Amino acid sequence: MSSSVRLTQIASYIPEGRVDTRDRGKRFDYGDDFLEGKLGTTSLAAKAPDEQASDLCVKAARALEGQGGMIEGVGVVIVCTQTPDHHGIPHTSAVVHAKLGLPDNCACFDISLGCSGYVYGLSVAISFMQAHGIQRGLFFTSDPYSVIIDPADQATSLLFGDAATVSLLEAGQGGWEVRDVLFGTQGKGGAAINNREGKLAMNGRDVFNFAMLTVPKQISALLARQELTLDAVDRVVLHQGSRYIVDKLRERLKLPEEKVPVHLSGIGNTVSSAIPLTLEAVLKSHQDQRILISGFGVGLSYATALLERCS
Amino acid sequence: MSSSVRLTQIASYIPEGRVDTRDRGKRFDYGDDFLEGKLGTTSLAAKAPDEQASDLCVKAARALEGQGGMIEGVGVVIVCTQTPDHHGIPHTSAVVHAKLGLPDNCACFDISLGCSGYVYGLSVAISFMQAHGIQRGLFFTSDPYSVIIDPADQATSLLFGDAATVSLLEAGQGGWEVRDVLFGTQGKGGAAINNREGKLAMNGRDVFNFAMLTVPKQISALLARQELTLDAVDRVVLHQGSRYIVDKLRERLKLPEEKVPVHLSGIGNTVSSAIPLTLEAVLKSHQDQRILISGFGVGLSYATALLERCS
Repeated sequence: MSSSVRLTQIASYIPEGRVDTRDRGKRFDYGDDFLEGKLGTTSLAAKAPDEQASDLCVKAARALEGQGGMIEGVGVVIVCTQTPDHHGIPHTSAVVHAKLGLPDNCACFDISLGCSGYVYGLSVAISFMQAHGIQRGLFFTSDPYSVIIDPADQATSLLFGDAATVSLLEAGQGGWEVRDVLFGTQGKGGAAINNREGKLAMNGRDVFNFAMLTVPKQISALLARQELTLDAVDRVVLHQGSRYIVDKLRERLKLPEEKVPVHLSGIGNTVSSAIPLTLEAVLKSHQDQRILISGFGVGLSYATALLERCS
Repeated sequence: MSSSVRLTQIASYIPEGRVDTRDRGKRFDYGDDFLEGKLGTTSLAAKAPDEQASDLCVKAARALEGQGGMIEGVGVVIVCTQTPDHHGIPHTSAVVHAKLGLPDNCACFDISLGCSGYVYGLSVAISFMQAHGIQRGLFFTSDPYSVIIDPADQATSLLFGDAATVSLLEAGQGGWEVRDVLFGTQGKGGAAINNREGKLAMNGRDVFNFAMLTVPKQISALLARQELTLDAVDRVVLHQGSRYIVDKLRERLKLPEEKVPVHLSGIGNTVSSAIPLTLEAVLKSHQDQRILISGFGVGLSYATALLERCS
């Protein structure tokens, strides 16, 4: 997909609250080495009890404005979430629309996707804007999974943190374009991450095997289609499922540590916000030209995009 | 939006189960005249207890195949729902992907929208397909609201029925193109339809006033942009909120009954499926060239599209 709508800024909101997982980990005989070395964090960002998905979005939008991003004239608001306000009625994007005081001629809808949600959502948002001549849009990710985590569950209670991000999308010059993207689904494996009676259940081994089999292959296919190799890419931003999964994928891709950032410490796996949070940090600290982003998880779903800086 | 991806077929699934609202109506002193005359039906389609949103989608897909629609080579599956399987994890489109045995290279995501969902979703699906060169896609609507209806609630228990539809979208010749579309949101009015602790609550008067103020204006704006009048349109397919709201909007538009179909009898208001169910019936019985579709409700959200038959 070549595009005149570009990703021009990313902003985020990470709640101040923290869950210390060193206490929780003792229950399962997990030491700090395991938490830090395998999962990538000993604490998880946790929203306040009265905060909902829309509140996290609004705070990310305020951060965007604080760093100079314009939300005036926004023609579309898309929220990627699987833990919406009000059980999804009304959609969280409409709630955000109200809280930001946006005008009537703004299209709003939510997308339901998990860890692949940023890559998919970015593509949905850009294609929607291009087709309808929308000059400025906001694409939010907000998945406060803490509301569906059972603190006694070994597979999930040490891993997921709350956060929201907003990506400003604008037609015109500069920014980052989505040069190409590939999508994938293995619905038959979907039970590996599911919501059972309101609580998240995950088979980490199945998710790991799925990622190892699909993600490197999809990255290779995308690069082949663009007649590029990994050498031509400055950074590979993977979904931050855990430190272990990022490390193992990096090894499979034969890439050095600095090229595949781990961005979990003090936050946790923030689902659809994990890639944009990591990307935000990369954009602040590096002058990259080409970045691969790859998300994988709930669905099971996966997607990889090549971002290229525009002059 | 001019498009080379067209709507080529619509199929649907209406569960066999029925709720007789003449009994329910007595509780509120509503007679058959009110039910038939104002709401438009004395019975509501009701899914079986073990059916979920994905099951309704699969049955709609089987109906599509039964009428000659191809699902082979489908590159995207989008489900519009606010009552997903598994509280939304995994997304219902991934569950449908598994049940239909679709290949890995198929993009799947859900959209959360209510009564405006068909108009929005059609535009999201077509723009996504065009941007990514996808030749064939399935856009489902499936909102079995019966799972969130309190049978004792006067405002909702006589109105909402369960159904699913699938729209086959294909690149190429023939079919219907979305010639133009307008979107709107009034998030500040969103409380008029909301999910309170798992049950739907609705202020019908607020929704009615919202529709009367926004829908005729949006239809006029779209026609003006296309330099057309209502005379040039064969049919106006409105969201089937109730017989009363369709009739009142029709009167406001100064249109005869045959031009604005009411399609509620024996089914009820099927949320995002109401427009495609009505459109399916219109396409079977008429040889129209131009059809306006307009959805309004949950959000509060509204959208109007002009469909034009392609040769």
